[in-house]
Amino acid sequence: MTSRDGFVWTPSAGGKEGIPSISVIEPQQHVAADTKEVLDAIVIGAGYSGLVAARDLTTQGFRTLLLEGRDRIGGRTWHSTIDGFNYEMGGTWVHWQMPHIYREMSLYNMQDEWIVTQIGGGPLDFCTLTTPHDKRNLTHDQEADMFGRVWGEFCNLDGAYMKEGMPYPFDSMRNKEQMSRYDKLSCRDRLEQIRSKFSTEEIGMLEAILLQMGGGPLESMGVLDGLRWWALGNHLPTGLNDIALSTRLRSGQSALARNIFDHAVSTRRLSYAFSSPVAKIEDGTSFCTVTTRSGKTYKAHKVICTIPLNVLRDIEFSPALPTKMAEAISIGQTNKCNKVHFDVAGPELVSWNSFASPGKGLICALADNLTPTNDTHLVAFGPSADTAVGLTLKDNVSGIKEALDHLLPEKKEVKRIVYHDWYNDEFSKGTWAYLPPEWVSKYNDIMQTPHGNVILASGDWGEGWRGWIDGAAQQGMKAAKLVADTYGSRMKSRI
Amino acid sequence: MTSRDGFVWTPSAGGKEGIPSISVIEPQQHVAADTKEVLDAIVIGAGYSGLVAARDLTTQGFRTLLLEGRDRIGGRTWHSTIDGFNYEMGGTWVHWQMPHIYREMSLYNMQDEWIVTQIGGGPLDFCTLTTPHDKRNLTHDQEADMFGRVWGEFCNLDGAYMKEGMPYPFDSMRNKEQMSRYDKLSCRDRLEQIRSKFSTEEIGMLEAILLQMGGGPLESMGVLDGLRWWALGNHLPTGLNDIALSTRLRSGQSALARNIFDHAVSTRRLSYAFSSPVAKIEDGTSFCTVTTRSGKTYKAHKVICTIPLNVLRDIEFSPALPTKMAEAISIGQTNKCNKVHFDVAGPELVSWNSFASPGKGLICALADNLTPTNDTHLVAFGPSADTAVGLTLKDNVSGIKEALDHLLPEKKEVKRIVYHDWYNDEFSKGTWAYLPPEWVSKYNDIMQTPHGNVILASGDWGEGWRGWIDGAAQQGMKAAKLVADTYGSRMKSRI
Repeated sequence: MTSRDGFVWTPSAGGKEGIPSISVIEPQQHVAADTKEVLDAIVIGAGYSGLVAARDLTTQGFRTLLLEGRDRIGGRTWHSTIDGFNYEMGGTWVHWQMPHIYREMSLYNMQDEWIVTQIGGGPLDFCTLTTPHDKRNLTHDQEADMFGRVWGEFCNLDGAYMKEGMPYPFDSMRNKEQMSRYDKLSCRDRLEQIRSKFSTEEIGMLEAILLQMGGGPLESMGVLDGLRWWALGNHLPTGLNDIALSTRLRSGQSALARNIFDHAVSTRRLSYAFSSPVAKIEDGTSFCTVTTRSGKTYKAHKVICTIPLNVLRDIEFSPALPTKMAEAISIGQTNKCNKVHFDVAGPELVSWNSFASPGKGLICALADNLTPTNDTHLVAFGPSADTAVGLTLKDNVSGIKEALDHLLPEKKEVKRIVYHDWYNDEFSKGTWAYLPPEWVSKYNDIMQTPHGNVILASGDWGEGWRGWIDGAAQQGMKAAKLVADTYGSRMKSRI
Repeated sequence: MTSRDGFVWTPSAGGKEGIPSISVIEPQQHVAADTKEVLDAIVIGAGYSGLVAARDLTTQGFRTLLLEGRDRIGGRTWHSTIDGFNYEMGGTWVHWQMPHIYREMSLYNMQDEWIVTQIGGGPLDFCTLTTPHDKRNLTHDQEADMFGRVWGEFCNLDGAYMKEGMPYPFDSMRNKEQMSRYDKLSCRDRLEQIRSKFSTEEIGMLEAILLQMGGGPLESMGVLDGLRWWALGNHLPTGLNDIALSTRLRSGQSALARNIFDHAVSTRRLSYAFSSPVAKIEDGTSFCTVTTRSGKTYKAHKVICTIPLNVLRDIEFSPALPTKMAEAISIGQTNKCNKVHFDVAGPELVSWNSFASPGKGLICALADNLTPTNDTHLVAFGPSADTAVGLTLKDNVSGIKEALDHLLPEKKEVKRIVYHDWYNDEFSKGTWAYLPPEWVSKYNDIMQTPHGNVILASGDWGEGWRGWIDGAAQQGMKAAKLVADTYGSRMKSRI
């Protein structure tokens, strides 16, 4: 099946919107007759949060409707298989230190399906570092050393590399007063605090690291999410790299997502409607009504809404969300990072990666295995065009190629480009969540508070791997548990 | 409630079998009328594996009977609260890098219930190292350095600190041929290979480390489980310590176990019978029959048996288990490690720990917080008396106190001793699983293969945190999934 999402370009065929994926669901609608009645639950959004919630509810006996605006499952995590290679369009890397999603892998016997992204042994086994006036190659050891020094110093706000300030990334606000203080800082603020300790080149690498994390601009990125990522990397210089940029699923993220979806379908209690964006969520006196943009209405006692933070502002809630929640949504998350796949001719770059000072659109790239045609698959990241240093993706193949040239040690023939323009996507309006200063200390808790019979559950808020696949699975699990707990007594009589 | 399990001694009251715990279930039997019919499943054993399996089955609508020999839930993981302090009698430490059990913590909102075992700042902030002819105190930095060097070298069979040989501890046999080769080695073999590189003192610490891991004798301990523990510690010198000897649940392990049990009970589909040890498991032509020692019989289509490896030999299976499974059971796991809690007078030792050459019964101790009376709670480990260097627990308070004196920097008044004699316990016959040479490569897979309608599911085998709490949760989850999958179609018609 081919999704409406995604973009692919090759020299021969040119650019094309829409790429193939097992995440596309056919038929798009499967709505049981009893959907006219009041269902047990409606889950809005079929990303990992919604999938886990729908699976947990249906396997426990609840009649559930899953509504999704896209034509596919997975939300910001899905893969496309093109000519035998899996391109992970969004969320990619998983690890056993991501407990909620690893548990899903384990449940579906995918626990040994590792494919390693950064492999050694290629002829160009180095990191190219591009700064405004220079381009040079570092050994990966030199790169790790520089990376660790600048990133470690950036995160060393407590003088103990956050081992004291944030010992537990899954309980990141444990030292609440201290963390709320840090939360006032933007990444720009922190960068300026430590700038004098480093060379221009080192600062260039640090900027690239930060822009890869949160897409920029640095003024809009809170320092707190960065500290949490550092703590998730076991407070080690390159710890995050080992956990979160290393191992991906051989069969692709959509294979795991399908396992969860298919499991829910197998219960025969799941109705679903894809290509059905939601316009309105009403919590009435005796049930909730969800209205799609096309005017269809569905009724349920409980609603789990997994719509991303930056899209929630497009949904009408009745009664209106509490002021503080509305404020959190109006501010939103800041990440507009672009992720672009390049297949470049030949296998030489298979052990290569790069960092670059911002300005040309892409700020880093890393090799991620060879394609079946023995070309090198590169994954590149960069800020989007609405920042001063960003890149336009739409209809801009020449610009994208130039941005890659800026990173490469020497010009290479590009054989394929694949990407998903998450920022201009109406159902995401941004990439993985990276939150602005003060957002976490002010709003992260309230976003997890049920609003009557409506529970907001996105990986954009939460704990631990917030903004990652694991955070989505966590939120979906917790939301389904809340719903199941309120139903407890009703369930007992049914079986 | 007071369990029959456990032992407590105080100077005033002397020794007493049985200690209080929220893990004791009252009433002991709750067997629904329909238990005379053929149930969906019988789960044998109420440790974490059995609890997770019973919870997963009952919440998915299956009528399930839980049978347990003890008077309580938790198996080898339970805590006793005495005078306001939680003594973890078996499995203790948990972490977000233990994905299956962390997911349970997260499900029941216990994710920020951390209490830290090893805290700094006390007046005796050092490690006492006792060797046959010497006793000296090391700073914790010196200790970490020595620990990391000897333990790292022990595990460095591949010359890359197992990053190449065993990159993924949850897929530990990935390099099967290489691992099977290592699996022929005992810990004694490996110790002799590297003995000449270290001083007597260093070898003494290494022996203590190994005996804490597997209880000894070293000849009976395979090297492979050690390598897996090292890999689980992120291939870092003191990584395992940070993950697996650091954070425990403030409210105690039995609080988490109760959450799982109570969740299953809340479905009203769980029958249970405690103090009901099983004698026989028959897989008949149309259903399975489980017979208790007292002659009661129960029938179900599926049986999940979570009985520990060393106890399985006491169960009669009909038809008999395959030869290779029987062989695996007959060999069993080797760990007879003793775990003893001491409350010693005063708070001075709160940052202290120790290692000692074997010979006096206990080979290490570590401080784990202060009691409400401001005394120091120590956790000590040592091999059991059936090894040349071990300690008798039963009726041997003076011997136990002497073994502690051997570790201490100076004699201290002991105000309380608490332990569970796991080796002499008929329902465990050993502590956490540590497997002998060649067991893993020969038997770990077959133990996970269903035997007709009977699934063996214990944390004593499996992957990742095998032998730990997480491994138990993993096995229970997988067994329940297998059962639920075979029932799929039957379930659909019921609701």
